[in-house]
Amino acid sequence: MTLPITPDDIRAAHARIRSHIRRTPVLEGFANGVPQPVTLKLESLQHAGSFKARGAFNSLLSQNVPKAGVVAASGGNHGAAVAYAAAQLGHPVRIFVPEISAPAKVNLIRRLGAEVIVTGRAYADALAAAEAWQAETGALSVHAYDAPDTVAGQGTTALELDAQAEVDTLLVAVGGGGFIGGIAAWYGGQVRVIAVEPENAPTYHAARAAGAPVDISVSGVAADSLGARRIGSLAHAIGATAITDSFTVPDAAITEAQKTLWHHLNLAVEPGGATALAALTSGAYRPEPDERVGVMVCGANVDLDRLAALV
Amino acid sequence: MTLPITPDDIRAAHARIRSHIRRTPVLEGFANGVPQPVTLKLESLQHAGSFKARGAFNSLLSQNVPKAGVVAASGGNHGAAVAYAAAQLGHPVRIFVPEISAPAKVNLIRRLGAEVIVTGRAYADALAAAEAWQAETGALSVHAYDAPDTVAGQGTTALELDAQAEVDTLLVAVGGGGFIGGIAAWYGGQVRVIAVEPENAPTYHAARAAGAPVDISVSGVAADSLGARRIGSLAHAIGATAITDSFTVPDAAITEAQKTLWHHLNLAVEPGGATALAALTSGAYRPEPDERVGVMVCGANVDLDRLAALV
Repeated sequence: MTLPITPDDIRAAHARIRSHIRRTPVLEGFANGVPQPVTLKLESLQHAGSFKARGAFNSLLSQNVPKAGVVAASGGNHGAAVAYAAAQLGHPVRIFVPEISAPAKVNLIRRLGAEVIVTGRAYADALAAAEAWQAETGALSVHAYDAPDTVAGQGTTALELDAQAEVDTLLVAVGGGGFIGGIAAWYGGQVRVIAVEPENAPTYHAARAAGAPVDISVSGVAADSLGARRIGSLAHAIGATAITDSFTVPDAAITEAQKTLWHHLNLAVEPGGATALAALTSGAYRPEPDERVGVMVCGANVDLDRLAALV
Repeated sequence: MTLPITPDDIRAAHARIRSHIRRTPVLEGFANGVPQPVTLKLESLQHAGSFKARGAFNSLLSQNVPKAGVVAASGGNHGAAVAYAAAQLGHPVRIFVPEISAPAKVNLIRRLGAEVIVTGRAYADALAAAEAWQAETGALSVHAYDAPDTVAGQGTTALELDAQAEVDTLLVAVGGGGFIGGIAAWYGGQVRVIAVEPENAPTYHAARAAGAPVDISVSGVAADSLGARRIGSLAHAIGATAITDSFTVPDAAITEAQKTLWHHLNLAVEPGGATALAALTSGAYRPEPDERVGVMVCGANVDLDRLAALV
């Protein structure tokens, strides 16, 4: 069955964006708090602090950007990424963010040169406001996760990892599904791609159980990055054949994984960035003894004050 | 001329320690605040937060450790590394640290399982106390920088980098000289190894000017990691033929480099860990346009509260 995003789409995205993004490094043999040494893809070191710079550049470089510039709605990381990509490419950019967004991200988006509009309690509210502004001005809207250019861009993380390390299984945090959709599309079942979500934001888990994307309520420590209300249709379609399984982890496990990454690797990550690792450190996912496991560490945009209070 | 530490010594050290240390990743193309894209060796992701785990493991694995265990004197990172290595290898360990040590490091050393003795205002005071305890109990003393096993262990960072990236020039922060000594011994003049020090702690710079190691007074933001009073004799001897040049940077430039690494790479590093980069971001070192420059990012043990106040 042909997936809606193909490896060729991802190769084309990579050719488009490679001079603008970082080839993030891989740390092999990370052994703290996990059943066996694992490979970490340190995508938290990406421009603007998460993998989302990839989809943002791919979107802006695939389309004609009007004079009105660029608009996005985002829990934070996508907004930062669109702000960064638009600024690097010389476009004006306006970002709509919900009130739950972490101050570190809102400040980051402003610092990157975007006009920030804080509106509404949840991601969907910010999205509605962005859509209204887009309709009014004709600005180019970049979707946070459910557009082919976005998903193909995020998939370049897997293209890179494929050349950097061999894994049997890859643990990936899921919000709206752009990241795992692109990754699963790249591997196409050749690697076991496992979705990991907070118990308080199980967007993909719920869709998998229901057999279709469904709206859910979201909350918890990772809601500002993984708190999409509904999984993207692309990720759901790709997941039917290319995502192997789905697990959830409690907020406490996510916080513990953040602490593990800080105490043992000196890496500051946000809750969403530690969620995939939490599946291992909490025992939610138990690999076979000889299974080569990779973990996507996908977001760094944490308030230092909050992290300091945690650790 | 044969250097006091040879590439074979470093290869032997690597064979000894490789299963205990992390092969730290490299980020190529880092382009923020620097004249041209550079290669960063992210040794700040090493166990216990700095390169010093390498020398600690090499020392403990090269010698017989008595029942009294292990003792070290350290501004902090060496102490953390010796504590970590000793604990991993099952030895009791006591670490003497001066009062200027950052709380993050003292807490880290305790968490790693060492008994910590805080004594004296400068590194030399802690060293004297450690030596007294060592004489009394027969514990194995691990020198922070001026012992062959230490220098050869630190040199394994260069052995790794050599296989990861090609550089013409490598910028390295200097405290007591164990790190740059090992690195320069590995490259033996094949790469331009450049010493970078705080203006307030120019241990190697002063020795180079005087033609011999000399005592200096040290202070400033990086004193807790780079504040040795006198360069090690091994580093000085190796430097005569294998360290190309020496630069100093003001404290403000070090702080700016810390901010650059946090804002643009989401990497939390301590002042000493940002000092080599500061030579580029401040313009103290100006590479040729086609020069491939590498930077050792060598220490992460920063108090999060302090970093939060900075950025």
